[in-house]
Amino acid sequence: MCDIMKEKRPLILVGNDDGYSFNGIHTLIDVAREFGDVVVSAPTEFQSGKGSAITITVPLRATLHVDEPGLKVWLVNGTPADCCKLALDQLLDGRVPDLVLSGINHGANLGVASLNSGTMGVIFEGCVHGIESVAFSYGNYSYDADMSACVPVLRNVIARVLDHGLPRGVCLNVNIPYDKGPLKGYKVTSTCMGRWVHEFERRTDPHGHDYYWMTGEYAPHYTAGEDTDLYNFNRGWVTVTPCHVDQTDHEAMPAIERLLQ
Amino acid sequence: MCDIMKEKRPLILVGNDDGYSFNGIHTLIDVAREFGDVVVSAPTEFQSGKGSAITITVPLRATLHVDEPGLKVWLVNGTPADCCKLALDQLLDGRVPDLVLSGINHGANLGVASLNSGTMGVIFEGCVHGIESVAFSYGNYSYDADMSACVPVLRNVIARVLDHGLPRGVCLNVNIPYDKGPLKGYKVTSTCMGRWVHEFERRTDPHGHDYYWMTGEYAPHYTAGEDTDLYNFNRGWVTVTPCHVDQTDHEAMPAIERLLQ
Repeated sequence: MCDIMKEKRPLILVGNDDGYSFNGIHTLIDVAREFGDVVVSAPTEFQSGKGSAITITVPLRATLHVDEPGLKVWLVNGTPADCCKLALDQLLDGRVPDLVLSGINHGANLGVASLNSGTMGVIFEGCVHGIESVAFSYGNYSYDADMSACVPVLRNVIARVLDHGLPRGVCLNVNIPYDKGPLKGYKVTSTCMGRWVHEFERRTDPHGHDYYWMTGEYAPHYTAGEDTDLYNFNRGWVTVTPCHVDQTDHEAMPAIERLLQ
Repeated sequence: MCDIMKEKRPLILVGNDDGYSFNGIHTLIDVAREFGDVVVSAPTEFQSGKGSAITITVPLRATLHVDEPGLKVWLVNGTPADCCKLALDQLLDGRVPDLVLSGINHGANLGVASLNSGTMGVIFEGCVHGIESVAFSYGNYSYDADMSACVPVLRNVIARVLDHGLPRGVCLNVNIPYDKGPLKGYKVTSTCMGRWVHEFERRTDPHGHDYYWMTGEYAPHYTAGEDTDLYNFNRGWVTVTPCHVDQTDHEAMPAIERLLQ
């Protein structure tokens, strides 16, 4: 391929939170390479649950793990958001990617749980930088999950986002069901509000001291409606939730004006 | 005070991200105690930048550091969100606090930076649990900042929130200017969209290997308007931004429907 042709291929930045050793990111990389040149910036270690955490007290290091035509893989000792930030600022030689992809997460990111999701942390960083960004999560939580059922979904969503773009400031949280029967198709959904219950399991160590494992089950409460991600995911739909990084509650502003008067 | 009177005092859960050794949280505790019984659940270590990160691979431990009438202080080896979650699930003996307070952060939490803020991570957890929650941040970034200028603001906001409550699902991000002249009063604001530029400083270690310190400056881009937190904070207003934990972009849903057709 001549240089001019090469320059026309989209540049796709790929990250995740499980780390580079997991199947999910390899399936995503394989599909992304069908569409463009891929640079991976992924955590060296398992970083699930890190949300949009960033690292400011420890310096980051990046190791170039794979360097072949159309694919570079950087491993970074940071959070998912760190990996994305470091790539955008330092590892892409000044190029701006056409797309930021995250996942495939081993486990769904539904409801308010997405607040704590490192998979989402990657695309929120992409979104802050004004780049089209999509996160993919699969309902199979197994560390060695077979991701092949996700491939047609990835191909479809990536093709459409590359062709048509996304509204400004919007990124996508895509969840692919597992074990819910044949996929029914796509539903555009909202985030199901809810909360965890029984969040911790208390145990006692051999020295008699208590410690707590985070666990918990998700209890949807005030809007488990038919337009939510959780409702549709559980019925076999691939859910696509448009998200943004602005957490302002604009509707509440007049009420807060009154509160402060 | 008799037991019945005691039961009527509000229960206030206090957290932060800088850790219990910082001035900010002590100023907040002192003011909170004027209003109710206080339980602190704060990180043992500095946890700035941790956003809504949670800890799932390491168990948490909680040490009861202070136990006196009207005040308990738990120190937890986790993130700011962990501390809040553990308190709500385990450390409050089944009681639900009337208020979750976070801060005072040594440094402002303005614009999209709040996405990465551990101070905000605390109140987002409170908000997920349906509890009135307020974060306070001060524009002085010094580790030994004198927080006395914040006290009247804390008193005013806490009193109003306890008296009148907040709209359902809404928490408050309060930023108090430093070094901008006399405080002008309160402005209800929106989060200033923007992004960081020059995010990392590359250095070389004594062994010849590169490493990166996160740094960067915040560059407001597409909405640095007159209703934003950044604009008003820089002009000496205490900014009060109503936030929520639902990151769905509801307005974008029809556009994403079309994208997938």
